[in-house]
Amino acid sequence: MAKQSNLRITPLGGIGEIGKNMTVIEYADEIIIVDCGLCFPREDMLGVDYVIPDITYLRANKEKIKAVIITHGHEDHIGATPYLLPELNVPIYGTDLALALIERKLEERKVSGIDLNIIAAGDSFQVGSFKIEAIKVSHSIDAAVGYALHTPAAVIVHTGDFKIDYTPIDGKVIDLAKFAALGDKGVLALMSDSTNAETPGFTLSESKVGETFENYFKKATGRIIVATFASNIHRLQQVISASKRFGRKVCLSGRSMLKIAKIATELGYLNIDESMLVEMEDLAKMKKNKIVILTTGSQGETMSGLVRMAAGEHRKLSMLPGDLVIISATPIPGNERYVSNVINMLYRKGADVINEGVANVHVSGHACAEELKLMLALTKPKYFIPVHGEYRHLYRHARLAESLGVKKKNIFIPEIGKVIEVGKRFSRFTETVQAGSVIIDGLGVGDVGTVVLRDRQLLSQDGLFMIVVSISQETGELLSGPEIISRGFVYMKESAGLLDGARDIITAVVEDCAKKQVADWTTIKGRIKKAVRNYLYENTKRSPMILPIIIDM
Amino acid sequence: MAKQSNLRITPLGGIGEIGKNMTVIEYADEIIIVDCGLCFPREDMLGVDYVIPDITYLRANKEKIKAVIITHGHEDHIGATPYLLPELNVPIYGTDLALALIERKLEERKVSGIDLNIIAAGDSFQVGSFKIEAIKVSHSIDAAVGYALHTPAAVIVHTGDFKIDYTPIDGKVIDLAKFAALGDKGVLALMSDSTNAETPGFTLSESKVGETFENYFKKATGRIIVATFASNIHRLQQVISASKRFGRKVCLSGRSMLKIAKIATELGYLNIDESMLVEMEDLAKMKKNKIVILTTGSQGETMSGLVRMAAGEHRKLSMLPGDLVIISATPIPGNERYVSNVINMLYRKGADVINEGVANVHVSGHACAEELKLMLALTKPKYFIPVHGEYRHLYRHARLAESLGVKKKNIFIPEIGKVIEVGKRFSRFTETVQAGSVIIDGLGVGDVGTVVLRDRQLLSQDGLFMIVVSISQETGELLSGPEIISRGFVYMKESAGLLDGARDIITAVVEDCAKKQVADWTTIKGRIKKAVRNYLYENTKRSPMILPIIIDM
Repeated sequence: MAKQSNLRITPLGGIGEIGKNMTVIEYADEIIIVDCGLCFPREDMLGVDYVIPDITYLRANKEKIKAVIITHGHEDHIGATPYLLPELNVPIYGTDLALALIERKLEERKVSGIDLNIIAAGDSFQVGSFKIEAIKVSHSIDAAVGYALHTPAAVIVHTGDFKIDYTPIDGKVIDLAKFAALGDKGVLALMSDSTNAETPGFTLSESKVGETFENYFKKATGRIIVATFASNIHRLQQVISASKRFGRKVCLSGRSMLKIAKIATELGYLNIDESMLVEMEDLAKMKKNKIVILTTGSQGETMSGLVRMAAGEHRKLSMLPGDLVIISATPIPGNERYVSNVINMLYRKGADVINEGVANVHVSGHACAEELKLMLALTKPKYFIPVHGEYRHLYRHARLAESLGVKKKNIFIPEIGKVIEVGKRFSRFTETVQAGSVIIDGLGVGDVGTVVLRDRQLLSQDGLFMIVVSISQETGELLSGPEIISRGFVYMKESAGLLDGARDIITAVVEDCAKKQVADWTTIKGRIKKAVRNYLYENTKRSPMILPIIIDM
Repeated sequence: MAKQSNLRITPLGGIGEIGKNMTVIEYADEIIIVDCGLCFPREDMLGVDYVIPDITYLRANKEKIKAVIITHGHEDHIGATPYLLPELNVPIYGTDLALALIERKLEERKVSGIDLNIIAAGDSFQVGSFKIEAIKVSHSIDAAVGYALHTPAAVIVHTGDFKIDYTPIDGKVIDLAKFAALGDKGVLALMSDSTNAETPGFTLSESKVGETFENYFKKATGRIIVATFASNIHRLQQVISASKRFGRKVCLSGRSMLKIAKIATELGYLNIDESMLVEMEDLAKMKKNKIVILTTGSQGETMSGLVRMAAGEHRKLSMLPGDLVIISATPIPGNERYVSNVINMLYRKGADVINEGVANVHVSGHACAEELKLMLALTKPKYFIPVHGEYRHLYRHARLAESLGVKKKNIFIPEIGKVIEVGKRFSRFTETVQAGSVIIDGLGVGDVGTVVLRDRQLLSQDGLFMIVVSISQETGELLSGPEIISRGFVYMKESAGLLDGARDIITAVVEDCAKKQVADWTTIKGRIKKAVRNYLYENTKRSPMILPIIIDM
């Protein structure tokens, strides 16, 4: 039973990718799961809404699972909860804000009966043989924590997403003393956020953004529109504080902005005087220099408040010349074009636009290289496992750890599904368990896979070319058709010659099959497909999806 | 005939976009065209290869066109030549390198009989009543020029793409004196490159990149692989020079790298000792610290040398642990993901990667704000027309001009197809002519338009749901089917229940139509479509393209 005293760490997501964070930590016959996130689809996952972790491994070990512990309320850490919690059916632990956001998600998907347990930074709680400590960290959402997991064998630390902010706007600094104390007692393994491992230096403090806001608010003579993530509650607070200071009222725009502001206010994370809020309907009556609109859309999302305003498609709000728009966010990789489009539209409407490139209107929520080093220096782990990031980030984070003296053989760059076993005298990658992505498209969870996606990809490139022929079952003669229907390939009306040529070719194939007494429809279809594919490629250099249909007569 | 002495400036591309630069300059009844470029499709133009300008306006004024003058040999300035020159059938002027690159394109598309006229920076040439001067500028390709167009009425200046490099590696500095002399004599209108108008300060000199190369070449102990644009000949030269200095030989990889290196060497722009070149086949025999591989793939393009090496799909080259990869380029907006993917793959293969974020391994070819100001200060134009850029860049460039004293009413932020008329006492936007985009997909030029693209978009999101029914022409009864074929929608095999439900609904619709004596097939198809669309959306929250086909019996 030597193996019993080792720990097994298996990431089911968040490795080699940004998103769907989920880590399985096993000791003896008990499992604790850290986070339960989703990620947004890659560009090649056409038509897909979300991606969540494949939990086949958890399904097979259901009786061992003792709890899901949540580090904070961002989508990439909680987004899979409505899909996976009902099946896992174990207690879930998290801060009040994280659980409130999860509750909202569960309600939206009509999931009930989940055992939610509120904990706070500084709390310790026992789950099976694990003693779990929640540790205050700074991040771009409030009430974020890291976790120390104490087992009879050892202590391991998971930072969650974090940065080190010495001057956070609520005064609640990351609990460096706790990380240091754990380090002094001995941390067997550290899992730490790698997102910004490539960026040298320190992440700026959130309070820097406040200073920038003050500068712009002081000078602005028209309306001010600030777009940011609704979940960045400190950011909202700073907009509200600057508005108050300069005698402006605040109008909230966007569904998630309204919902999260409500939750955060109820829980005491957002401090906003009711009298400072105004409704959209009342803005027209107000002086422009008394107005701040706080909106979603910092990523250029089509349906967001800001984009609809910029495009002139918002029912209640329109852009006015002289508006000052502050985009208080960084484009998530892949969103650069959308953000650029909205900036172009805003300028066209006569607004002035301040974004990250122009001034300090945004700071990251993730630790840069020097902060990561500090975390390593405080916790002094024997084994180091960089998590949360693409391979390039994990790799750089691993090199940082090496530069601080962690032995190379004690650093594990993880892979999804690859089990890392760590003990006092022993560490290795052991087996690889089934893991990966489950695709969510509309109501379907997992019913879209590689075949469906490949077909969408094919259809998206050169469209569709459908052929309908009726063939006599007795003689194999062509009775009617060939009829051709195409979509996304060429303008049908202007391609009469091309289509006539295709019809001739199909007719010839069918006649040839009849002559040679080829009666098997799969074979006939195959021949039609091949002949048409060659003909179309030669004449257009395009390869639409070709679908021959034979009708029984 | 007062209008006769005015100039008309009409951009047919390169405005509100990066790419397909083409500007029409008219005086009296003569037209000069500046550049003839293509652009790469936006993300929503599925399956499209290139986009070129719509030249309907030129077609209608063919007899007026005197010449096409080319500023430099980048795709966004010459890429449309094989498609448009045969039709325009006028003399084309450009530097030797630009024309050599155009010639290669014409050959590839088997276009011949184009009247190509080589000019050099400093040359003046007469075309109709225009005296045209080519002016040396610095850019990320050699032999780039701007143009001054002298008409009896006035002088206008078009910078082309440019930056100000005081220490270019060939010692040929941008001809600031010429721009200054033109300014002293009086420039009526300036068209100037806006790409980097948002970036404060100055663009670094190309020679800075050389310094960085030296540093890395000095330290490297394994192979060095440099990925860059083949057309950046100064960059190639710097790689070759550093290789020479440190006793390494150079292997060229990638089709365009080989072709452009050949052309540039023949024309004397690239100085490479034959003995320094090695073939891929010979690399295996060589010591690793004697090798430099100069390759395409700096944008993460799927078929490029670097990506095939990183993915282990290159026939002749594979990555080795200890390789140093220098990505000497910036991702073009939209390519960030591809570049990130190749960096991840390279790290996984054990290579070290140096890119823009890590060191000065790339500089832009476009002027930043301070350089743009210098150009404005030298040419002192009465009218200013920012060109080459998205609206945000044009807008910022316009503001820069204003800050230098150009009157706001004399600044025209252009639009594609919108004619700007400028004269000594007079300027305005006049009419808007037909202009826009022509899509190239395979062999087709312009046969893919909004309808085809919309269908591809639709198909890409939720796939296709095809229904085939045979209906009696006499009674309207269902004779066979409904058969259902779907692609890119759901796994057919696992969705038997869903498909059965759809069949029942279709059968019910057909029977209902028969009962009510609805015999019009368009109506029956419409009803089937509607019923199936609602059913599928309710059950899957997806909206595939629905294609009902009725077979005549």
